[in-house]
Amino acid sequence: MASPGENLKINGDRLWESLMEMAKIGPGVAGGNNRQTVTDEDGEGRALFQSWCQAAGLSMGLDQMGNMFARREGTDPNALPVYVGSHLDTQPTGGKYDGVLGVLGGLEIIRTLNDLDIKTKHPIVVTNWTNEEGTRYAPAMLASGVFAGIHTQDWAYDRVDHDGKKFGDELARIGWRGDEEVGARKMHAFFELHIEQGPILEAEGKDIGVVTHGQGLSWTQVTIEGKDSHTGSTPMPMRKNAGLGMARVLEAVDQIAWSHAPDAVGAAGHIDVFPNSRNVIPGRVVFTVDFRSPDIAVIRDMENKLRVAASDICGQMGLSVSFEKVGGFDPVEFDEGCVTAVRSAAERLGYSHRDLISGAGHDACWINRVAPTAMVMCPCVDGLSHNEAEEISREWATAGADVLMHAVVETAEIVE
Amino acid sequence: MASPGENLKINGDRLWESLMEMAKIGPGVAGGNNRQTVTDEDGEGRALFQSWCQAAGLSMGLDQMGNMFARREGTDPNALPVYVGSHLDTQPTGGKYDGVLGVLGGLEIIRTLNDLDIKTKHPIVVTNWTNEEGTRYAPAMLASGVFAGIHTQDWAYDRVDHDGKKFGDELARIGWRGDEEVGARKMHAFFELHIEQGPILEAEGKDIGVVTHGQGLSWTQVTIEGKDSHTGSTPMPMRKNAGLGMARVLEAVDQIAWSHAPDAVGAAGHIDVFPNSRNVIPGRVVFTVDFRSPDIAVIRDMENKLRVAASDICGQMGLSVSFEKVGGFDPVEFDEGCVTAVRSAAERLGYSHRDLISGAGHDACWINRVAPTAMVMCPCVDGLSHNEAEEISREWATAGADVLMHAVVETAEIVE
Repeated sequence: MASPGENLKINGDRLWESLMEMAKIGPGVAGGNNRQTVTDEDGEGRALFQSWCQAAGLSMGLDQMGNMFARREGTDPNALPVYVGSHLDTQPTGGKYDGVLGVLGGLEIIRTLNDLDIKTKHPIVVTNWTNEEGTRYAPAMLASGVFAGIHTQDWAYDRVDHDGKKFGDELARIGWRGDEEVGARKMHAFFELHIEQGPILEAEGKDIGVVTHGQGLSWTQVTIEGKDSHTGSTPMPMRKNAGLGMARVLEAVDQIAWSHAPDAVGAAGHIDVFPNSRNVIPGRVVFTVDFRSPDIAVIRDMENKLRVAASDICGQMGLSVSFEKVGGFDPVEFDEGCVTAVRSAAERLGYSHRDLISGAGHDACWINRVAPTAMVMCPCVDGLSHNEAEEISREWATAGADVLMHAVVETAEIVE
Repeated sequence: MASPGENLKINGDRLWESLMEMAKIGPGVAGGNNRQTVTDEDGEGRALFQSWCQAAGLSMGLDQMGNMFARREGTDPNALPVYVGSHLDTQPTGGKYDGVLGVLGGLEIIRTLNDLDIKTKHPIVVTNWTNEEGTRYAPAMLASGVFAGIHTQDWAYDRVDHDGKKFGDELARIGWRGDEEVGARKMHAFFELHIEQGPILEAEGKDIGVVTHGQGLSWTQVTIEGKDSHTGSTPMPMRKNAGLGMARVLEAVDQIAWSHAPDAVGAAGHIDVFPNSRNVIPGRVVFTVDFRSPDIAVIRDMENKLRVAASDICGQMGLSVSFEKVGGFDPVEFDEGCVTAVRSAAERLGYSHRDLISGAGHDACWINRVAPTAMVMCPCVDGLSHNEAEEISREWATAGADVLMHAVVETAEIVE
């Protein structure tokens, strides 16, 4: 299997122009995008992508979940395709790059191979996965999840948005519900380019993140019950302050996460205090502890330590505490061969790089269950994402797509 | 000045029946009351009280804030009256006793004196202060505040409820806006009986609280700014977690209050976390610290310690913090002579008692600025108040009204 030469580069200006063209569809109010899944805007974005694929000579497949598969043929009719892509849908106040870079980076690979008349043994298929964001229809990564057998298609079709509209009906309404059976395709490999959505690469001045793992996640909803009482007329020794109990548990959460440094993280983003009145000591607090680690044993250990610490803290304060597991997924270990292909590509191209653990979920995390998979990440400004102010540089996008191309083309095998 | 004999007792059954009659007006949904200020229900409650006052031979005065003054004449035409009372308005989900016990306890004194044909040198005036609760029209203790010169009447009239209706207009609409100048009356003394709204008396098995002070209050709204970021993709050392900063400040608030044990208290009842999403590290938290003490120097010390501690904590965590004083009033020291009259009355009647600091605000706290004032408190079940489940026993109400009567009658001077 021959590696492409280090002089093989994508056209960074063309990629950037396509990103800016796509960003005109479903514009946000603050410079980003609102192109939520299975809306009219999603349909418009798909049509633009399809027109670009046709112009590049690709044939388009469409499955019953609306997943798009734009195929460039290989030289070996029996070789399984190498898939590359991400998603075109955005958050309600999303950025221009989250997901889109991965799809249009895949398209840019095809355009470059066409320009240079490079053939590969394996076909290359550029993919747009439906509803990665999960904001209009929870959960996130819905269609790649059906593809990988995580969810059934009927269940996915029955997901309902805030207006009571079903996912399956809306997918048909915008005209992107295909006939192809979901998950029937077999893949030689899958590669996804994505912005980091975290601050590490930018802070360390690295061009490329070689994603070796996806963090596992555990969400524990903690409810502490004390007693509502007057902030003035309740002496300190007679208080059952659920808010103070929460404060002590949050300190414990921080210590637990640090005890598994450097890869584990922990915090509470969701906190509701009742009755939330200035002169009533909180009688009840509900908050969700988010623990993540690439090691499932560490996640289990953090969950257990939370329960022990919170029970101790609340017991000493005369508070009661209960726990509910409200979310979670296991860590992902990406395919060693695909990860090596990404790392080697960065080396060969002379881009600075480091191994990275993805903190967020991605379509690649589900596809890894059914095909050898890896991810490439590029920096984003200030780690900001899921925000219209999300920003990357043209150079970062170019480097990411260059590495993506080299990993894809090496895996698809250049025909000399 | 002769003290009344220890055999002088109010009629506990009659007092209880009046409490239950009044509770029929503006019934709540859970056994309590919704008789908010200057509503039709408030008007109905006032009319019932007025009819009882007329039946007891009292003349009714009404000032421009709707404060009611039901007068029993004394034998000395030059003697200033002794005032006694509280408020008939309730919280939206209020109890049957908060305020009402103090007004109807005052009426029961008159009924008992009438029964026994006891005359006093000073007139006795039973008072219903308008809008003590402050829920429909903030602030609390509005009309006693105007009476004591804390607020101007024009400002009070212009207070607006959630529907945009002005206090002054609504007071006129229900027919209880009088002509009398507010605050023109001079008082020999003022006594208020109230349920404790705290757990101390019940926990210690005491019948009577002799209220020596009202706690001063300081509300500091604290805003901590960190940085919203993804709970998964932000490494622990790069987080600026405003929620964790809040947790540490709440621990400091607790320590600061305990450092001034036993009378000082401190807590945060109001906590808002932004954006309050399970997978976003809080970038901003706003919460209000409530400190109280009967000693103004202690309040100032706690305020200062909060600012120093929160600035230290946030500085170490890379968070910014700002402070806004959003409420406060100075501690109240009730009149020594009136307090002694209450304590002596409890002694004489053989009721167990202890000195108490009122944690909540009361009309008596404002009237203390313009007249010698004291308060009597009786226990309430579980310290619960501002809640339809608020409860007291008939015995507690009787003991409280007995002590109130002895203090009032001793101060008004029985004519032998």
